[in-house]
Amino acid sequence: MTTTARINGARLWETLNTFASFGQTDGGGVSRLTLSNEDQQGREQLRNWSEQAGFLCQSDDAGNMFILRRGRDSSLPPVLTGSHADSQPLGGNYDGIYGVLAGLEILRTLNDLQIETERDILLVNWTNEEGARFSPAMLGSGVWCGIYNTDYARSRTDSHGVTFGEALDRSGWRGHLPAKSRPLHACYELHIEQGPVLEAEQADIGVVHAAMGQRWFSVTINGFPAHAGTTPMDLRQDAVAGFAELVLAVEQTGHSFSPDGRATVGRAKIVPDSPNVVAGQVICSVELRHPEFETLNLMEAKLHQAVRDLSKRRLAAEIEKLSDYSPVHFDSDCIACVQQATEELGYSSRSMVSGAGHDACFVSRVAPTAMIFIPCVKGISHNEAEAITPGWATKGANVLLHTVLRSANQ
Amino acid sequence: MTTTARINGARLWETLNTFASFGQTDGGGVSRLTLSNEDQQGREQLRNWSEQAGFLCQSDDAGNMFILRRGRDSSLPPVLTGSHADSQPLGGNYDGIYGVLAGLEILRTLNDLQIETERDILLVNWTNEEGARFSPAMLGSGVWCGIYNTDYARSRTDSHGVTFGEALDRSGWRGHLPAKSRPLHACYELHIEQGPVLEAEQADIGVVHAAMGQRWFSVTINGFPAHAGTTPMDLRQDAVAGFAELVLAVEQTGHSFSPDGRATVGRAKIVPDSPNVVAGQVICSVELRHPEFETLNLMEAKLHQAVRDLSKRRLAAEIEKLSDYSPVHFDSDCIACVQQATEELGYSSRSMVSGAGHDACFVSRVAPTAMIFIPCVKGISHNEAEAITPGWATKGANVLLHTVLRSANQ
Repeated sequence: MTTTARINGARLWETLNTFASFGQTDGGGVSRLTLSNEDQQGREQLRNWSEQAGFLCQSDDAGNMFILRRGRDSSLPPVLTGSHADSQPLGGNYDGIYGVLAGLEILRTLNDLQIETERDILLVNWTNEEGARFSPAMLGSGVWCGIYNTDYARSRTDSHGVTFGEALDRSGWRGHLPAKSRPLHACYELHIEQGPVLEAEQADIGVVHAAMGQRWFSVTINGFPAHAGTTPMDLRQDAVAGFAELVLAVEQTGHSFSPDGRATVGRAKIVPDSPNVVAGQVICSVELRHPEFETLNLMEAKLHQAVRDLSKRRLAAEIEKLSDYSPVHFDSDCIACVQQATEELGYSSRSMVSGAGHDACFVSRVAPTAMIFIPCVKGISHNEAEAITPGWATKGANVLLHTVLRSANQ
Repeated sequence: MTTTARINGARLWETLNTFASFGQTDGGGVSRLTLSNEDQQGREQLRNWSEQAGFLCQSDDAGNMFILRRGRDSSLPPVLTGSHADSQPLGGNYDGIYGVLAGLEILRTLNDLQIETERDILLVNWTNEEGARFSPAMLGSGVWCGIYNTDYARSRTDSHGVTFGEALDRSGWRGHLPAKSRPLHACYELHIEQGPVLEAEQADIGVVHAAMGQRWFSVTINGFPAHAGTTPMDLRQDAVAGFAELVLAVEQTGHSFSPDGRATVGRAKIVPDSPNVVAGQVICSVELRHPEFETLNLMEAKLHQAVRDLSKRRLAAEIEKLSDYSPVHFDSDCIACVQQATEELGYSSRSMVSGAGHDACFVSRVAPTAMIFIPCVKGISHNEAEAITPGWATKGANVLLHTVLRSANQ
């Protein structure tokens, strides 16, 4: 019975489409900021669907929603799945919400097929994963996992001066459950890849064994502003030219630690930013990512060397480290469970690392956790143009179904 | 008598300091935009000084001021000298005005020493050289030289919507002389170098034989915006990395045509300019300068090659040429006259090219012309920190005195 079980792909797709109406944008995406009216409409819909299917829906005092399908023995630690329903200001229809609604779909499927599990299954909708309305990101899961305390979370303020606590209380989604982790047997988060690898390799499923550590830096390069017409090349201290060397050194650092290394300069400010002035200063971002702590150290050392090398151009440069998130290694049993489900379903897959942060990264600190990725078109995400196919959505949900089923019967 | 003549350095320095009070800024520079109250105060002072010394002061219908010291034979084409009194919004105390007040100083010196010249000497204060209030730059000399017509000039509008024509009429500096070139025996413009070469080489005088041609471009580099965490290095189309290669290729082009080549990227806009997004687009300026037309063609060809090379990174790039000013070669007799004056005075000098544009570049189209440079501290100009020494100022004015004397007696 359980091995032939499949989710209802048409229902999942329809559910996704319905949910995309909450905060729909002219560009075909969604704007569903945390605890906005649109987010609240979505939450109500999710609660209605859950209660219509006979599941208890509760929220905690960080606004995280938990939907319960009981197993035979509720005294056992449950299996948790889910993701988030909030979006970027101009986000897509799948980032986060796909993991939530695929979770709902597997609970519905279990009902349809009258499959009982040994353990309870808990579906979660984490609050404020994107960090777009309230910074930092992954705030709800962060509180639940003990990384942030409730007072800190409630004090976070949006761009209009509204605190997270005020918004939560007004919305009515501050629940009675404490936002505090409870023992879990396992946690599985299903998500779109938000990158181009699975589509490029025509793989159905990404079995995510780790999430990258991230280190963010600001680099300030000081040269000397000069007239572009009157200053000979060899008397220049051109901050833009130094910036260019730094960019290529950072890029080379990423390539040196392929395939998992990431090294990016995405932002730069030139002073004075005038066509006929040799720039006196450039301030730029550098971010380095890798799943191994030691490799991140090597990458950071290369960055420092590249910055020191700017002295050869008589440029003075400084590095400031803005943030440092450690790599996450997911639970080997959970990873094996996802891998096995994928193989039994006959889907193509590849082992992979998440380059982005997710709620599951925090949950992995308190419970055995893994992630499942499906492809997304051209890797486009945090964008109204974000797209997946119904076939991809169905396969991902089937993997989640079999993973959770296996886990909930262990 | 004439060979031992020297200007009064103390008077020149005092005159410069007095004039610096018109539009003085807190930062020690001046803000004397074309036809502003500050510029009008300066013009009145200059007229007063001129008339007190017995010189006729008239203006033309582009606001250019002409101060006349008669020679023995006013039927001969006169010798013209001078520069401009307007400044950048936060400009220095010497750019332009030094050439005007040094010209006044040589007229005063000729009076003091009762030296008669064969030809008339005309001192000019050109209107709107900087282009800071009304674009384009060198508007007054451009009209006088027939490069712009009067209607075009009068229609130029400042950032408040005031036209040049309105500002000129209101100021009272619209004169009765036609803004139209008349036959000149020679023209000499004395100016600060606005670059670091003379100071670095400890040369007193720059004998300027040419002014560089300039070509300005906008280059747009299109890649593909992508998540900096989820997009592997080898799947990126990173517009910032392509920009970095372009910057270094442009810089190399400048070095390839040293010492006179200039190649500068001073402005860039990154889209979306976010630390964790691989940039999808960079739009940047490129400007190329050289005194030889053919060399500018070679430099431009190298720029086009560098832009084509971006296709190796799967980046699509386009070049737009924004402006193209031909190089100027000054008159060999005028250059020789400056060189001879410098040598007779025993000053150190070097032959050089102006990297910046000046009114003399326009005048050279209608009359034999050359320029004289003096050092400025660290090459700083268009900046409140612009500085020269009294010694440099005196030597430059002495060279101008002997150059003009020799020329006006030919």
